[in-house]
Amino acid sequence: MSAGLRRGLDEAGAVAMVVVARSSRDPDLAPFVGPIHLGDALLVAPRAAEPRLAYLTPMERDEAAATGLALLTPAELELFRLRTELPAEEHFWAALIERALTLVGVPPGRIVVAGSGRAGMMMAVGRALESRGWVPLPGQRLSLSLRKRKDARQAREAERVAAAGTTAMRKVAELLAAASTRGGELWLEGEPLRVARLKREIARTLAGFEIEQPEGNIVAPAEEGAVPHSTGTAERVLRSGESLVVDLFPRGWLFADMTRTFCVGPPPEPLELAHAAVLAALGRAHARLAEAAPTWGLRASSLQDMTCSHFANLGYPTLVSDPATTTGYVHNLGHGVGFDLHEYPSFRREAGAEGVLAPGDLLTLEPGLYDPQVGWAVRLEDLVLLEADGPRNLTPLPYDLDPRAWH
Amino acid sequence: MSAGLRRGLDEAGAVAMVVVARSSRDPDLAPFVGPIHLGDALLVAPRAAEPRLAYLTPMERDEAAATGLALLTPAELELFRLRTELPAEEHFWAALIERALTLVGVPPGRIVVAGSGRAGMMMAVGRALESRGWVPLPGQRLSLSLRKRKDARQAREAERVAAAGTTAMRKVAELLAAASTRGGELWLEGEPLRVARLKREIARTLAGFEIEQPEGNIVAPAEEGAVPHSTGTAERVLRSGESLVVDLFPRGWLFADMTRTFCVGPPPEPLELAHAAVLAALGRAHARLAEAAPTWGLRASSLQDMTCSHFANLGYPTLVSDPATTTGYVHNLGHGVGFDLHEYPSFRREAGAEGVLAPGDLLTLEPGLYDPQVGWAVRLEDLVLLEADGPRNLTPLPYDLDPRAWH
Repeated sequence: MSAGLRRGLDEAGAVAMVVVARSSRDPDLAPFVGPIHLGDALLVAPRAAEPRLAYLTPMERDEAAATGLALLTPAELELFRLRTELPAEEHFWAALIERALTLVGVPPGRIVVAGSGRAGMMMAVGRALESRGWVPLPGQRLSLSLRKRKDARQAREAERVAAAGTTAMRKVAELLAAASTRGGELWLEGEPLRVARLKREIARTLAGFEIEQPEGNIVAPAEEGAVPHSTGTAERVLRSGESLVVDLFPRGWLFADMTRTFCVGPPPEPLELAHAAVLAALGRAHARLAEAAPTWGLRASSLQDMTCSHFANLGYPTLVSDPATTTGYVHNLGHGVGFDLHEYPSFRREAGAEGVLAPGDLLTLEPGLYDPQVGWAVRLEDLVLLEADGPRNLTPLPYDLDPRAWH
Repeated sequence: MSAGLRRGLDEAGAVAMVVVARSSRDPDLAPFVGPIHLGDALLVAPRAAEPRLAYLTPMERDEAAATGLALLTPAELELFRLRTELPAEEHFWAALIERALTLVGVPPGRIVVAGSGRAGMMMAVGRALESRGWVPLPGQRLSLSLRKRKDARQAREAERVAAAGTTAMRKVAELLAAASTRGGELWLEGEPLRVARLKREIARTLAGFEIEQPEGNIVAPAEEGAVPHSTGTAERVLRSGESLVVDLFPRGWLFADMTRTFCVGPPPEPLELAHAAVLAALGRAHARLAEAAPTWGLRASSLQDMTCSHFANLGYPTLVSDPATTTGYVHNLGHGVGFDLHEYPSFRREAGAEGVLAPGDLLTLEPGLYDPQVGWAVRLEDLVLLEADGPRNLTPLPYDLDPRAWH
């Protein structure tokens, strides 16, 4: 991480990166500290020295030590004095950041600030830092760049979270396969099968792996799945012959992300055709990734271009034929995944270095087709880790619409 | 909320409150918008007009409408133009905030800013707003004040989350009651009973209610429970005759918070005595709350004073006898609970109006005793809602150390 950090700081003309965090879960702090539990914390990474982690309560000494980082202790930071002299949070934090920078030998200058905080307080902290000669700069891009390449531990965790997600997805397939049909409705265990039942099973399965869903999930039937943003109405009863989009994005230390689409009973022909088209698009994207190894260097946006051509050739509208279309292929092919659900690599055509694929990238491939007028959707999404010798699919699940074909 | 808002703005000499949020989960935004799902959002509450919610993608129109708030649409905000002209996030956000304030008729002046955001970006946004004549002020205190009194819907949700928590706590008691003892270790289902097994059961139970644990939980045996900050080591095998502190703080729309302490098999005498002392302290605190209704007006810190006296009379060290003690009664009696796990009412002696109890307050009572040298702890924590006619305990669970006494 340190070569990238130095390069990023040089580009910004900055003397250090500072990460302000409300907890060790902060996506900008998490890659530095690992999967541990800290409350409010501060990381200072000078251009020319090792990063140091400031922990803010003696009770967190052991957790902080477990990060393996050089530490700034509450005593060194004179926290007790600062808190007493500066009861207003914004003054305390400005003084704390200044003290930490001074302790690591960084003179006033431009600093890249990542992490998160209370909006109004951060505005006030920024003002206070400026009055003391520091110039805070937004740190999101530098943090995302540093996080693009996953190391071995991060890759293992993504794999673990993805495996838990696939277990939950198989559970969904099981429940759907076990459902019977009454007057078009799916029934299970003596009652209509609702979105809520599947969401509950997903949450319980993931909880069994101590994995959470801080951003929820999507279990969206028919007309709901046809609007990519809809997460699915809990009380909605599922029906045979309709599409059901299940998109899981659970988080452990890192996120995973995967989607399958189901249909219980014979699918209508447009749905069946769309499924075949989406599956072919996904296959092409996987194949293109495999060709790109081991040199990589491929731009993620080229995968999107290829996918748009594929769908256009089959007669579906795409964002190329109509940038405002809500029917057909209406979104990008994928996104990077990591400590945030959406991070680098970027699939945007305007992307710079963050759009170039390289070993260590963790990304989704998720072609989809939507018809909000008729009310159906198909999306198939795999999570792929780019390794030196080739891509590895972390979500090896069936792609069948029919859940009975899954076991 | 609006009378409190006006008063708060007048005290700050501000023309409006602005809430910047990454999602509708933001504790400063959640009470305005309810339990719905929005991504990035902005709320503008002028001193003399209704608050308005700005949503940032047309896809969220229906969710935004479901809040019942007056809206600022992407078209009114000219989002497309702003995004195109201002690709840097900090410029976009500064312009967006300015545009929203202008649309609701607020002239440049002091604004109270609540919510959360990326630290470096918020510093840059603050600088840009100042250059245009706005003066951003930290909004945490005002937001906490507005959130202190829970309305009927919030109270119902706290009750629902608390009920789910008590179900999980009963599940823990069940597993402990079912355990057998081999050579001092607890065994269940043919293997040693570990902290991880209880944590898994808790997570699965809460997931069944669609309730999460964004801040985790504490399942801390003996020496681990004796340090209030420790969350419990997953691999630790439980033993008979030792204390086990189980502290759950699950979140739905709001948080709940509750603690019980268990001991399988005969407790050592110091643990048994401490349990009796803690239970008596909790009983006194409940009784004092009941006496304070219906006029209320009691200071939360007076409950802490009372509890310190109680423990001191029994010969335990307290923070009064030694502010740095880690043995005895080492923390405050409680805290407010709501959209943040810790909010108003405040139990701090220095608190102003935020330390005065009133109907609608949701708070914990959690006396505890700790002995990190010997390695045991007792904490008993109830979640209490102050209603007009008296306090209501939302965590009606047994207090017994012995899980076999629980059913």
